[in-house]
Amino acid sequence: MARLVMKFGGTSVADIDRIRNVARHVKREVDAGNQVAVVVSAMAGTTNQLVEWTRAASLLHDAREYDTVVAAGEQITSGLLAITLQDIGVNARSWLGWQIPIRTDSAHGVARIADIEGAKLIERMGQGQVAVVAGFQGIAPDNRVSTFGRGGSDTTAVALAAAVGADRCDIYTDVDGVYTTDPRIVANARRMPRIAYEEMLEMASLGAKVLQVRSVEMAMVHGVRTFVRSSFTDPDAPELKNAAEPPGTLICDEDEIVEKQVVTGIAYSKDEAQISLRRVADKPGVAAAVFMPLAEANINVDMIVQNISEDGSLTDLTFTVPIADFDRSQQVLEGAREAVGYQAIQGSTDVAKISVIGIGMRSHAGVAAQAFEALAGRGINIRAITTSEIKISMLIDASYTELAVRTLHSLYGLDRN
Amino acid sequence: MARLVMKFGGTSVADIDRIRNVARHVKREVDAGNQVAVVVSAMAGTTNQLVEWTRAASLLHDAREYDTVVAAGEQITSGLLAITLQDIGVNARSWLGWQIPIRTDSAHGVARIADIEGAKLIERMGQGQVAVVAGFQGIAPDNRVSTFGRGGSDTTAVALAAAVGADRCDIYTDVDGVYTTDPRIVANARRMPRIAYEEMLEMASLGAKVLQVRSVEMAMVHGVRTFVRSSFTDPDAPELKNAAEPPGTLICDEDEIVEKQVVTGIAYSKDEAQISLRRVADKPGVAAAVFMPLAEANINVDMIVQNISEDGSLTDLTFTVPIADFDRSQQVLEGAREAVGYQAIQGSTDVAKISVIGIGMRSHAGVAAQAFEALAGRGINIRAITTSEIKISMLIDASYTELAVRTLHSLYGLDRN
Repeated sequence: MARLVMKFGGTSVADIDRIRNVARHVKREVDAGNQVAVVVSAMAGTTNQLVEWTRAASLLHDAREYDTVVAAGEQITSGLLAITLQDIGVNARSWLGWQIPIRTDSAHGVARIADIEGAKLIERMGQGQVAVVAGFQGIAPDNRVSTFGRGGSDTTAVALAAAVGADRCDIYTDVDGVYTTDPRIVANARRMPRIAYEEMLEMASLGAKVLQVRSVEMAMVHGVRTFVRSSFTDPDAPELKNAAEPPGTLICDEDEIVEKQVVTGIAYSKDEAQISLRRVADKPGVAAAVFMPLAEANINVDMIVQNISEDGSLTDLTFTVPIADFDRSQQVLEGAREAVGYQAIQGSTDVAKISVIGIGMRSHAGVAAQAFEALAGRGINIRAITTSEIKISMLIDASYTELAVRTLHSLYGLDRN
Repeated sequence: MARLVMKFGGTSVADIDRIRNVARHVKREVDAGNQVAVVVSAMAGTTNQLVEWTRAASLLHDAREYDTVVAAGEQITSGLLAITLQDIGVNARSWLGWQIPIRTDSAHGVARIADIEGAKLIERMGQGQVAVVAGFQGIAPDNRVSTFGRGGSDTTAVALAAAVGADRCDIYTDVDGVYTTDPRIVANARRMPRIAYEEMLEMASLGAKVLQVRSVEMAMVHGVRTFVRSSFTDPDAPELKNAAEPPGTLICDEDEIVEKQVVTGIAYSKDEAQISLRRVADKPGVAAAVFMPLAEANINVDMIVQNISEDGSLTDLTFTVPIADFDRSQQVLEGAREAVGYQAIQGSTDVAKISVIGIGMRSHAGVAAQAFEALAGRGINIRAITTSEIKISMLIDASYTELAVRTLHSLYGLDRN
């Protein structure tokens, strides 16, 4: 017997037939003797409709009212799944954020979970009742409904798993796990049976769109074993009933990963733009003069490269910003021109960030050098580099994205045999 | 300055444009210096969609889950109207049933209001903030959402008006008031400026579909002056801004009605069916043998007529039941055949109940006799009669409905000049 949290997203509950399919997944786990809580998103399309209405009502809407409106989507699904479960003989009831309660801070629209009271749920689950929890929502200190922003149902699931001490949090999604890279680019990418929290965090924030970054962070902090698996399989397929580890990817502590590899995955992102300031005075205080105004404008700067100046006086400064903030960044820098004293701004949105990720890098030298050499061998110019203990990111021309990903995927032996 | 509750139904909030129109009605009252609470229904069509989903999920669904699903409709409207009000500069916030709270009994799906805490709303309204209240819902003793059944938003509005001590409860609807009879039948029916609670109760339960019976009962018990008016007028029309009493019908205590009439309205209903038991033994206990099984089957019997038997042994017993229960009633009576000892069951769904209503009848003799004579003069046969202090109801062949209504409407001087 285990205690499980199962999470199903919008496409998995898009209509009553799909909800019935979800109910069968839940029944399989109940029949296997598990205690189960299920977290559901709004039916696909519902949240968009609700958001559209709030925008039509006012472009500058009160976030508290926005939350009241959009939280209705998950409320509807939770009731419908409870009804569907009861219909196939599974004892179940719905729980809204304020009923559990899932307490959040007061940042309506992008609220963060402060505390979940797990006691009532644990009691009911112990009595064999499935808890169907409306995802994405909680209750703020002002006694009003709060929501977590997009992807918030993943966060609900992981936080709930921590609160009820679940053995595993199963994220059912439209893919069957986390791959060594994007299978649309590399046909022989492999599904990883296991990946460490830290690696998944890099994969998630670098563009592998399987799980929200916040939910991975939360899983890591609370040690929630999180399992990414497909909701599109037959719920009663034999391999789901008997296997010790069904098809999917387990995100877990690195200690649980027996066969560690140096590099586990290659990620890429086209969501950043490059900005270069030419011929900047190479003196103390210049970096602050550039990056403080950007920070004040709430623009996240990612990769930063400053060349060493040849004559000790003028240098080039290159960095990346989110592509959505590209124009605004240039305006901010124009405003800071006098304070910084640069000669020209150059920018490009036609860039891609390629990242090599692996917890094994920490103890293996030369991983970065191999990457640089391999890309050079393909004639790919590297515009900027950043590294951390477990990843190397390289900024290149966007047109080389696929070639670079394939080259690195082969280089580190990730191709499926 | 007055304290007002305003209520808008589903067609009045059917889309964002209509909600914007509602916001302008609210703004007019706020600008006039009033303290305002608004009760809203779900957007037209939403509740039907939600109910359909619960039925598709399971024919025998848990009423608590049904409530969780369908209450989302009013939740959405309350948030959207609050946003729209803020957009035109009106301070407003939404309130869900559990936030106020509106406490109900535990009869999920058809819950009754037990208690409303008005203090928080009164405080906010006193600070100039409009309270936008989701209609049709409350919180049951089990801490779960409860709903009131169809038309429940009227009940919310009247109960809320009582709880906050409102000077008036304005029910905005698709008609501009209560008429002396159905204007589709009598072209020169008149809108009544005022009608007593007791009269409206008879009008409502007899087929004038303006207001839910329960909300009128509640208005009478708590003395809530309830004003039926149109939501389709221009919110900024001059006659709405300046008139002491804008166009509509005020449902109030009879003391407030200066010019009392003997008869105020003619109602009709085709929702009942007639059943006659032929040649029933005329002895004590027979009525109980007939009506107890019907009561046990939860069938409401309305008009009852028992002829006096000529020879003191056998008689005919005629009564009406809701048309939806017609077949079931006959089955129940077949089962009771031996105990009752009747010779034959006859029934007809092709009947109409015509009612003459007026609080002035209490002090005027001969009102009923006039009606019988007038219908006889038109060759209309009366199958059954029931009377109360303030109404006379007559069961006739359905084909004479329009003729009977017109005849009585003229008879009592209700035609518009």
